[in-house]
Amino acid sequence: MKMTKSVKNILNNYESDNAGTKGNLARILMHGKLAGTGKLVILPVDQGYEHGPARSFSPNPEAYDPHYHYKLAIDAGLNAYAAPLGMLEAGADTFAGQIPTILKLNSANSLATLKDQAVHGSIEDALKLGCLAIGFTIYPGSEFQFEMMEELKELALEAKSLGLVVVVWSYPRGGNLSKEGETAMDVCAYAAHIAALLGAHIIKVKPPTAHIEQKDAQASYKNLDISTLSNRVKHVMQSSFNNRRIVVFSGNAFTDTQGLLNDIKEIRDGGGNGSIIGRNTFQRPREEAIAMLNQVIDIYKGKN
Amino acid sequence: MKMTKSVKNILNNYESDNAGTKGNLARILMHGKLAGTGKLVILPVDQGYEHGPARSFSPNPEAYDPHYHYKLAIDAGLNAYAAPLGMLEAGADTFAGQIPTILKLNSANSLATLKDQAVHGSIEDALKLGCLAIGFTIYPGSEFQFEMMEELKELALEAKSLGLVVVVWSYPRGGNLSKEGETAMDVCAYAAHIAALLGAHIIKVKPPTAHIEQKDAQASYKNLDISTLSNRVKHVMQSSFNNRRIVVFSGNAFTDTQGLLNDIKEIRDGGGNGSIIGRNTFQRPREEAIAMLNQVIDIYKGKN
Amino acid sequence: MKMTKSVKNILNNYESDNAGTKGNLARILMHGKLAGTGKLVILPVDQGYEHGPARSFSPNPEAYDPHYHYKLAIDAGLNAYAAPLGMLEAGADTFAGQIPTILKLNSANSLATLKDQAVHGSIEDALKLGCLAIGFTIYPGSEFQFEMMEELKELALEAKSLGLVVVVWSYPRGGNLSKEGETAMDVCAYAAHIAALLGAHIIKVKPPTAHIEQKDAQASYKNLDISTLSNRVKHVMQSSFNNRRIVVFSGNAFTDTQGLLNDIKEIRDGGGNGSIIGRNTFQRPREEAIAMLNQVIDIYKGKN
Amino acid sequence: MKMTKSVKNILNNYESDNAGTKGNLARILMHGKLAGTGKLVILPVDQGYEHGPARSFSPNPEAYDPHYHYKLAIDAGLNAYAAPLGMLEAGADTFAGQIPTILKLNSANSLATLKDQAVHGSIEDALKLGCLAIGFTIYPGSEFQFEMMEELKELALEAKSLGLVVVVWSYPRGGNLSKEGETAMDVCAYAAHIAALLGAHIIKVKPPTAHIEQKDAQASYKNLDISTLSNRVKHVMQSSFNNRRIVVFSGNAFTDTQGLLNDIKEIRDGGGNGSIIGRNTFQRPREEAIAMLNQVIDIYKGKN
Amino acid sequence: MKMTKSVKNILNNYESDNAGTKGNLARILMHGKLAGTGKLVILPVDQGYEHGPARSFSPNPEAYDPHYHYKLAIDAGLNAYAAPLGMLEAGADTFAGQIPTILKLNSANSLATLKDQAVHGSIEDALKLGCLAIGFTIYPGSEFQFEMMEELKELALEAKSLGLVVVVWSYPRGGNLSKEGETAMDVCAYAAHIAALLGAHIIKVKPPTAHIEQKDAQASYKNLDISTLSNRVKHVMQSSFNNRRIVVFSGNAFTDTQGLLNDIKEIRDGGGNGSIIGRNTFQRPREEAIAMLNQVIDIYKGKN
Repeated sequence: MKMTKSVKNILNNYESDNAGTKGNLARILMHGKLAGTGKLVILPVDQGYEHGPARSFSPNPEAYDPHYHYKLAIDAGLNAYAAPLGMLEAGADTFAGQIPTILKLNSANSLATLKDQAVHGSIEDALKLGCLAIGFTIYPGSEFQFEMMEELKELALEAKSLGLVVVVWSYPRGGNLSKEGETAMDVCAYAAHIAALLGAHIIKVKPPTAHIEQKDAQASYKNLDISTLSNRVKHVMQSSFNNRRIVVFSGNAFTDTQGLLNDIKEIRDGGGNGSIIGRNTFQRPREEAIAMLNQVIDIYKGKN
Repeated sequence: MKMTKSVKNILNNYESDNAGTKGNLARILMHGKLAGTGKLVILPVDQGYEHGPARSFSPNPEAYDPHYHYKLAIDAGLNAYAAPLGMLEAGADTFAGQIPTILKLNSANSLATLKDQAVHGSIEDALKLGCLAIGFTIYPGSEFQFEMMEELKELALEAKSLGLVVVVWSYPRGGNLSKEGETAMDVCAYAAHIAALLGAHIIKVKPPTAHIEQKDAQASYKNLDISTLSNRVKHVMQSSFNNRRIVVFSGNAFTDTQGLLNDIKEIRDGGGNGSIIGRNTFQRPREEAIAMLNQVIDIYKGKN
Repeated sequence: MKMTKSVKNILNNYESDNAGTKGNLARILMHGKLAGTGKLVILPVDQGYEHGPARSFSPNPEAYDPHYHYKLAIDAGLNAYAAPLGMLEAGADTFAGQIPTILKLNSANSLATLKDQAVHGSIEDALKLGCLAIGFTIYPGSEFQFEMMEELKELALEAKSLGLVVVVWSYPRGGNLSKEGETAMDVCAYAAHIAALLGAHIIKVKPPTAHIEQKDAQASYKNLDISTLSNRVKHVMQSSFNNRRIVVFSGNAFTDTQGLLNDIKEIRDGGGNGSIIGRNTFQRPREEAIAMLNQVIDIYKGKN
Repeated sequence: MKMTKSVKNILNNYESDNAGTKGNLARILMHGKLAGTGKLVILPVDQGYEHGPARSFSPNPEAYDPHYHYKLAIDAGLNAYAAPLGMLEAGADTFAGQIPTILKLNSANSLATLKDQAVHGSIEDALKLGCLAIGFTIYPGSEFQFEMMEELKELALEAKSLGLVVVVWSYPRGGNLSKEGETAMDVCAYAAHIAALLGAHIIKVKPPTAHIEQKDAQASYKNLDISTLSNRVKHVMQSSFNNRRIVVFSGNAFTDTQGLLNDIKEIRDGGGNGSIIGRNTFQRPREEAIAMLNQVIDIYKGKN
Repeated sequence: MKMTKSVKNILNNYESDNAGTKGNLARILMHGKLAGTGKLVILPVDQGYEHGPARSFSPNPEAYDPHYHYKLAIDAGLNAYAAPLGMLEAGADTFAGQIPTILKLNSANSLATLKDQAVHGSIEDALKLGCLAIGFTIYPGSEFQFEMMEELKELALEAKSLGLVVVVWSYPRGGNLSKEGETAMDVCAYAAHIAALLGAHIIKVKPPTAHIEQKDAQASYKNLDISTLSNRVKHVMQSSFNNRRIVVFSGNAFTDTQGLLNDIKEIRDGGGNGSIIGRNTFQRPREEAIAMLNQVIDIYKGKN
């Protein structure tokens, strides 16, 4: 398939990047069923690290096997598959060249007492495993946020100089943030903006709610209609360099399919670039997951 | 345009610097409508990082687009444009060679609980983006001030050895400082002096008030008339190696135009080298901002 | 002895590893009385470091001599011997080529006030001492867990690139974990999973109990029968990439022989790859220890 | 398009390579009109370097423009495009992600007095330009051959460790070789074998003639029928680790189309993996070149 | 199998080496049918590089396949298999851990005009491929001998520090040496001695003739009976630090079996450590080769 105008236009926004990074970004955008549309769906599987194996995989025990996720991403025609080191190592050779992969370089876990993450992978690992991108989480608000941003700075600089794409999970957490505040409109837009300022190529945020967390920000939202998710997504895109950066939205905990699909429609209508959906896919039987992902893909294709 | 005596005299003050750094300093001083005057106006856009996107850009939504600021700085005939990594990356190629740029290497954000900043850019980034200078904030007074100064030491050493200019935002904050103390006469002069001692080529401070914060300093100010801003600016310049270092003054939060212009006149009359004005420019419509910047420039040209 | 299918199948699971690492893994699996079975028994002697010499060796004073442990591992026909730097240095030449060795790179000690470990060996040490593997402990849950994981990241990357095997002791400890929680079913499976995600080739965990520590995890275990150790081991293996990683179980503090052998049978029946038994061996007289290890080996050979 | 068995089987032959290199090899084999067939056609444009611009491009002056060759390779549906540094730099951004590229790292030129080449590109260049492979020429027989092989050793080691593919142009030349000997059966098979021994993933040789150059080798060819090109290609493949390495054959100087197509058929029938055709394509008008390449591709697809 | 006294005694001679190198030397000596005897037979396959593929493999075309040689060495129960980079890469994963391998780091070829070799592999390659030793050829007498020795110096130092064994092919050639002189008694003993002085652990020489090449050396051989090969081997062993270094003797070009076996007996009787036999094995049918190797092994076991 030849490169489309949609993809070419997106690449043009990454004007400081070398051809290596643009090429890898193109490979992600030109892969799978959404190839060429400028939209993308990514399968992330770091929940085993974040929440533990049983909480993640017991609903669908086949998912304990790392090969399961490679196959799911390939067979569902997704754009990319993201996971931590060991998960990718366990299938890197079998599936080499079959699906763009993203090496998630840091993770937290539910035994942790600190709002930080461990950096457990490197750029060299990413190149050896044939990954096209690295993934990194920051927790804006946390008392470790500056340290995390500094780790990202080093990794992103090296990644970009070697032609890799940088995906930033920007998840506000800790500090003075309330639980509700973690997904507040102002905080989510802020998180996306910070990720863009840190040089992310692809930004992952949670779908924002209509809540405004920061007192100082309330005035700025008075004249903005954020009553619908699509409008909120629109504001996140605006905050991501006026649509110059790719933003994908997470699916979060397992929800009913219809609710998820409605959210996807709003993300699409708000101009979001796509979704990164983990638990909602691998926690249901494979055939059901593929069917649901097909529906998601159809929405991004504009069919619904 | 040939180099002027004013600029040559300024360059002569930086006597330990290599020709690379002097050349870049000259490029900043010889650019825009103030070229050759020894005065300068810089557009800084890190408020998205510091205060969030909506608080920064919703008053003038075109400003969500990173290209907007490049164009504004170019069209208003400013000397330089300063911003964090992602902001410059998003326009570095389009505007290469059109306006001197300063890579702001660290930032705080309004979700933070610590009076510190994240270092999110590097000297290598600055060179790749074609920047002539780096920018770095220190918080004299904060419990993180020494760490910040040590970070600056490493970055400034590397920057200078590669011919870059070092701009230091010296913003007293934290520790035992009262809110009023952050802009006190003694504290502001102290902040400028510390920046000069840390090897800054260009120092950015806030316009000082007549308040004296430190008890031990009060005696020293008894015989100094600091009742006018111009006198206070004069004392800041004196504290910056007796005018051997360039000092620019910030504009802070959005204020009425006349108030701002009056301040500029006093800065000029006190011997300040210029202004670094963010929110007061990009939070108003483009044409209005350019008109105002023209008035500022005219003041520094001595026309008013 | 020619390589067996069992061993070949295990090697195939390590698909991202180079031939150097696979070869050393094969050497461990093809050594001793269990050679070729895909099962393994390792002698670890870091208790002197962890608990002090008298607590470790006074029950059997011959064990104060580092040569004692080399000989024990060789004469009992074990697969490998693991110890910290000095312990291996003291016998490396005498026993070169006689038993695969694992250099334990970090250790805690009972004088410590922090739930962390000192990294006291390097990859270069391992190669000079002729070790086939490195060993490293992480404490999931501890406030130092992220730091430990980051240390492991660096060491594992270097080890793998030079053909060494990486053995991870994954011992939950500290933070909010109760004492009982350290060996809880959910926590143990989580610990094994994290080690696999960090890229371990061989994972060492403690045999789990039926306790569930994390409230959020309880629902996931409702439909899983974890009443027997063999079932719990099965779940650990499942959590270790669905049996794609080798997992060995520790023997813990000195227990009665029959209890230990019963445990070994359950580990075998649950599909565990073997045992790593320290105090239960070297704290009894040599002949008794060898007899007991023979019984353990016979169980893994399926004779009981 | 999903990966085919043909491609998977080829990848399996590269058993010491990491997933990065296998993935990039897969990307080359899964690109263009021959995607998935295990056959490949590559456009090389280093003739400007080797023979000068007028000799190379005056027959078809559009070919003076580096973009011309990118477009030709893309529009003809080839697997990859190979060229020296400047040639790729001139189009790397415009065509990022549209065609696999191979950075040719060394070249000779027709002004040279030595049978050697200059190394004029690096692995870092290759990654920045988004290349999936590096290309390197050796001259077996030349008095500089050992030096060239040592240069290749360094570059190949670095390339492989970072996931790049290594393509070796093995062109016997110099020393005691007669002109006829450069393409002799024994010498060509030897050249392919040496490239394989040096660790090449893809080997480029010239189609061999039935001449035997080396006296000591004549006996070995007594019982081998090398009267047809297809048989000679078969022997080259045999000499390339019994078909375990990909071998592509050059087209050499501009020849008549029918002669070229007949050669292609014989290469295919002999089990060769494909062709690398420069002058025969870009020295004729674009439409004619594309038509001819379509015929070549059809032959490799088995249609003729 | 437990380490034998014979092997232990040999290891003791390498008193400056670290446990890593001794361990790998032990692994070679404890492998295959001669395990534990202190004797060894190595299969070297670099003839394709040295003489070309057809001259090497056409007598037994199965030998074109790199896997053939791995299998031959394994099935014949040899101690080790030595080959250049590509040859090992092509089977390293399939046969990981099944046979000690030696990476031959340099080679000449029959197209060469210089009596030198190309260094085409590295220590890093050796570790990644799981090799226990490196192999390196020097040409004492050649005008390139000093350069070759200096290359060896660097490689041997690095190899030893990482626990690898160093095998030196010491083949006098070039300079003033007559063809007959290359295998002369004085020259062969000299070559072995130089290799020992360069720090070789295992020395490979050709079986010497009774010819004395150097005029200045003739007096020294007046009272030495070198009429039998066994006596000449004895002198080579004496010259190799009085039997403190392992010396293996090559088989050279294909000869009749009985002649070869007679030579082997004399090597054994002279105290030589073993043989390194290439063409005499892989140029005959596999079953015949294995039968012959069994005879060779039996001779070294003292059975004939």
